[in-house]
Amino acid sequence: MSLKIVIAGGVAAGTSAAAKARRCDEHAEIVLFEQGSSISYATCGMPYYLNGVIKERESLLVVKPDSFAQRFNIRLCLRHRVEAIHSEEQEVRVRDLSTNRTFRERYDRLILCTGSRAVVPPLPGVELPFVFSLKSLDDMDQIFSFMAEKSPRRSAVIGGGLIGVEMAECLRERGLEVTLVEMMEQVLPFLDWDMAQLIQAHLDEKGVRLLLGQPLKSIGYGAGGDGEVIIGSGFRVPCDMVILAIGVRPDVELARRAGVDIGPTGAVSVDDETRTSLPHIFAAGDCAEAMHLITGKTAYMPMATVANKQGRAAGANAVGRHLKVQGFCGTVIVKSFEMTAARTGLNQREALREGMDPLVHYIHPGDHAGYYPGSHPLHIKIITCRRTGHLLGAQVVGRKGVDKRIDVFAAALYNRMKTEDLIHLDLAYAPPYAPARDAVLVAGATGQTLFSGDWRPILPAELYERIHGNDQLCIVDVRQPKECREEGIIPGAIEIPLPDLRERIGELDPDRETVVYCRQGVRAYIATRIMSQRGFRDVKNLTGGVLSWPYELVKQNRSEPDGDPLKGCES
Amino acid sequence: MSLKIVIAGGVAAGTSAAAKARRCDEHAEIVLFEQGSSISYATCGMPYYLNGVIKERESLLVVKPDSFAQRFNIRLCLRHRVEAIHSEEQEVRVRDLSTNRTFRERYDRLILCTGSRAVVPPLPGVELPFVFSLKSLDDMDQIFSFMAEKSPRRSAVIGGGLIGVEMAECLRERGLEVTLVEMMEQVLPFLDWDMAQLIQAHLDEKGVRLLLGQPLKSIGYGAGGDGEVIIGSGFRVPCDMVILAIGVRPDVELARRAGVDIGPTGAVSVDDETRTSLPHIFAAGDCAEAMHLITGKTAYMPMATVANKQGRAAGANAVGRHLKVQGFCGTVIVKSFEMTAARTGLNQREALREGMDPLVHYIHPGDHAGYYPGSHPLHIKIITCRRTGHLLGAQVVGRKGVDKRIDVFAAALYNRMKTEDLIHLDLAYAPPYAPARDAVLVAGATGQTLFSGDWRPILPAELYERIHGNDQLCIVDVRQPKECREEGIIPGAIEIPLPDLRERIGELDPDRETVVYCRQGVRAYIATRIMSQRGFRDVKNLTGGVLSWPYELVKQNRSEPDGDPLKGCES
Repeated sequence: MSLKIVIAGGVAAGTSAAAKARRCDEHAEIVLFEQGSSISYATCGMPYYLNGVIKERESLLVVKPDSFAQRFNIRLCLRHRVEAIHSEEQEVRVRDLSTNRTFRERYDRLILCTGSRAVVPPLPGVELPFVFSLKSLDDMDQIFSFMAEKSPRRSAVIGGGLIGVEMAECLRERGLEVTLVEMMEQVLPFLDWDMAQLIQAHLDEKGVRLLLGQPLKSIGYGAGGDGEVIIGSGFRVPCDMVILAIGVRPDVELARRAGVDIGPTGAVSVDDETRTSLPHIFAAGDCAEAMHLITGKTAYMPMATVANKQGRAAGANAVGRHLKVQGFCGTVIVKSFEMTAARTGLNQREALREGMDPLVHYIHPGDHAGYYPGSHPLHIKIITCRRTGHLLGAQVVGRKGVDKRIDVFAAALYNRMKTEDLIHLDLAYAPPYAPARDAVLVAGATGQTLFSGDWRPILPAELYERIHGNDQLCIVDVRQPKECREEGIIPGAIEIPLPDLRERIGELDPDRETVVYCRQGVRAYIATRIMSQRGFRDVKNLTGGVLSWPYELVKQNRSEPDGDPLKGCES
Repeated sequence: MSLKIVIAGGVAAGTSAAAKARRCDEHAEIVLFEQGSSISYATCGMPYYLNGVIKERESLLVVKPDSFAQRFNIRLCLRHRVEAIHSEEQEVRVRDLSTNRTFRERYDRLILCTGSRAVVPPLPGVELPFVFSLKSLDDMDQIFSFMAEKSPRRSAVIGGGLIGVEMAECLRERGLEVTLVEMMEQVLPFLDWDMAQLIQAHLDEKGVRLLLGQPLKSIGYGAGGDGEVIIGSGFRVPCDMVILAIGVRPDVELARRAGVDIGPTGAVSVDDETRTSLPHIFAAGDCAEAMHLITGKTAYMPMATVANKQGRAAGANAVGRHLKVQGFCGTVIVKSFEMTAARTGLNQREALREGMDPLVHYIHPGDHAGYYPGSHPLHIKIITCRRTGHLLGAQVVGRKGVDKRIDVFAAALYNRMKTEDLIHLDLAYAPPYAPARDAVLVAGATGQTLFSGDWRPILPAELYERIHGNDQLCIVDVRQPKECREEGIIPGAIEIPLPDLRERIGELDPDRETVVYCRQGVRAYIATRIMSQRGFRDVKNLTGGVLSWPYELVKQNRSEPDGDPLKGCES
């Protein structure tokens, strides 16, 4: 007798599960209930339809229901919602949303793919007609129509996560004024605060007004009858439309009411074969937890990539296979105008929260050979376990080649590589694609010097604190005078250009704790090598140089000439 | 007492060695002899200077001699050639090429970075004034001047490797007629023949005339006094200039005469710390061998990436460190007009030559989400060890995103991953960067189905042979009629579109050996799953579909209408 598989929800995980179940078992009966009227649509493409990059709404509908049902021989019921699970009887109660009638459907295996919902905070005004979320195609269509009909001029985006940042770009490109309101002191919380500064500067450049550290208080109408957002400080942001992009939470009502275990993250708890706590019931996608590869703990990662993998495994396992889902690294990438920001593994904040001892360093290599046109720096923050040397995570921000490096770091994390071993990767080099010393190799080489004791990094935050604590630190800037003049120096620094260092080393006190810095860290590293081998007892390198210094520099305005303007740019 | 390090040669490996030696030992005496008048110039950038993409010759000179010498406190002797090694006395004999005088220089450690030379075959005419190699800046300058002065109209490039293909593009972009002559039956020998077809088609499209399987016989002047190249077939190619790009060979004369062991590849044999067979002598870069990570054998890999890593290790180890150089995967990438071709690990030919049993499959995923503008297919050939399931190599050809995938495959090779485990990598997904199922994940998923026994691939070459051997094979094309009509079918195939397969399965004989194919392999995989579970005893999938079929298709010209033109495009 053939198995009967019932799947509740048909976006990413549900369709993956159905297709895989069919490929594994041609004879199973497969029924898919989806409450909406489309399946497997491209949620992540919605902001790009709204800004006109994607021209056809049709193209977001990745899989057409009819051909999907035919190809995989699936009973596909659109506008049907699974409302209850009777796990003892192995039945679900389903509501046909077109007729509003309910019926019961038996299952041998049930796969929950109920997804997630946009978080709507319980605040005054969130229900107003100019306030939108962006989670479903319906949401998208509503925003599209509103913009076409009302031609809003001013917008507010609440929330600076992925969707918030994408929507800020989208609205700006549609010509609207955009104010982005975020409760935290930074956008893109998957980045550390310092790395987020790079994106914030870019958003600012693109005319997005940022109001950080500001919780939303209410949405309403101002004196003139126009819409407005009121934030924590009491400040009022006049606006014609509001996008709520505060995040999503797993849709677990169905599971919870049936007694399926909900994990600490609020999502359905599943084992590594996507089994829930109840027999014959699987869960996959945004409604389910995933395992974090680095912490070894469950985590909530509502990403299409996770949903596809879990869905595929659930489909196979529902018909008797044993496909494992392994841990995820929390890999995230987002486009923001001309910049890209990405993270894999843990950031510094998360590593600290996990009680780890992260060793942090920054590098700024080019995305491809500097002599080949169009090269831009990549800004990379690398988190290493100080105790074992293993890579814990990486953040990359830049204009090009960010996706490549984050994927190589993700592959390194999966394989539990040590940071210093990254230098051994045989990465592809030709001038249009990479420098001969690719960014990931530089991460490895610098990791090697860190662990060999050849240099000791000091973090920007630590140096900043010590400067402001009136510390007796000696700070040496080894850039060329021209760079110091144009870019400014760190408060209190003595300037000794690297080429003069050996000659002028007598000006410095070898017994005093010394911090050296340059533009990106390369020359300062060479300087610390010179100094530590010439009797300096305690010399550190400001990792990442002024390119990773997220605080203000002292602008200088001196007039001495600069001997060789090119010299400073080598590394 | 401080160590005295002498380095012979100062391009990639020599300068890496000098800089690293200094960083590791501030007190060493470091002497670098370079026979040319520049150091560390960007060899790989030269074709891009010649075609005008790189505007300034200056920008190829990555490191200026003076500032390098000053920064690293190095005695840098340009236009000095090390002519002999007296290893017993630990001395070298050096010729000052400006004065032609020689002198002896003592060393504690000697690092050989003598590089490689362009191969010039001993054939008539290679010395003619319109014949050039492209190995050094001098070569580049000569080509540049020749083109400026003589305005050649017709060119011949001898050799279809990296430099040959880059120079074909360069000359074509400068408006010359280009004939590329190659002895093998394909260009880019790091690719398998079938993958090379994709680049050859592109070269053809761009107006490069290919003469494959044709050895060079001679170069001379034709009847009218114009230059000409005569190839193996006797065919004459009239041309105003010739680029010889037959390859390079290690420059090991100095080492050989001193009694340093030369390895089976013809390059200097070194251990994993770049030590040669003679005490106190190291070698790095194009003159030295490297270890191949997959074969475990020494190999000759004259790449900048290898040179930099070996040079760095040699510099450190010369002053007493123990930096290891690990194996390389033979990773290569090349731009050819709008296409990119890359390889890491072994190709099929090499795997067979090594006596391995390679399991080969092809995939054609998009470089990013199909619904986001500008997506192009990546053509990927994956080589897996049939016995253990380990990834052995990958080849990627496409328009965008090739470099990213090859680097992830290279990271997988370093970590000895199984092909099927690639699916577990947590790669970054957002529509502009990747499909939710990234190419590498697809490689993993298909690898998983291969090893689970869910599908059995047949290779294009095998199917082609069996068709031409009048085999009793049943071949089924499951594409839509429109696709078959437009793209042609494989000779003898029966057409049953996938949506009709379950209904029309009775038309096929389940006891007959059957091969199914489609456009890229996805629908055929689904079809084989249906058929094998419905009693077909021997059903295989033509891996890669018609997109990987390097032979001619039968063009069809039928007139039946096509129900749903979009349907065939899903996967």
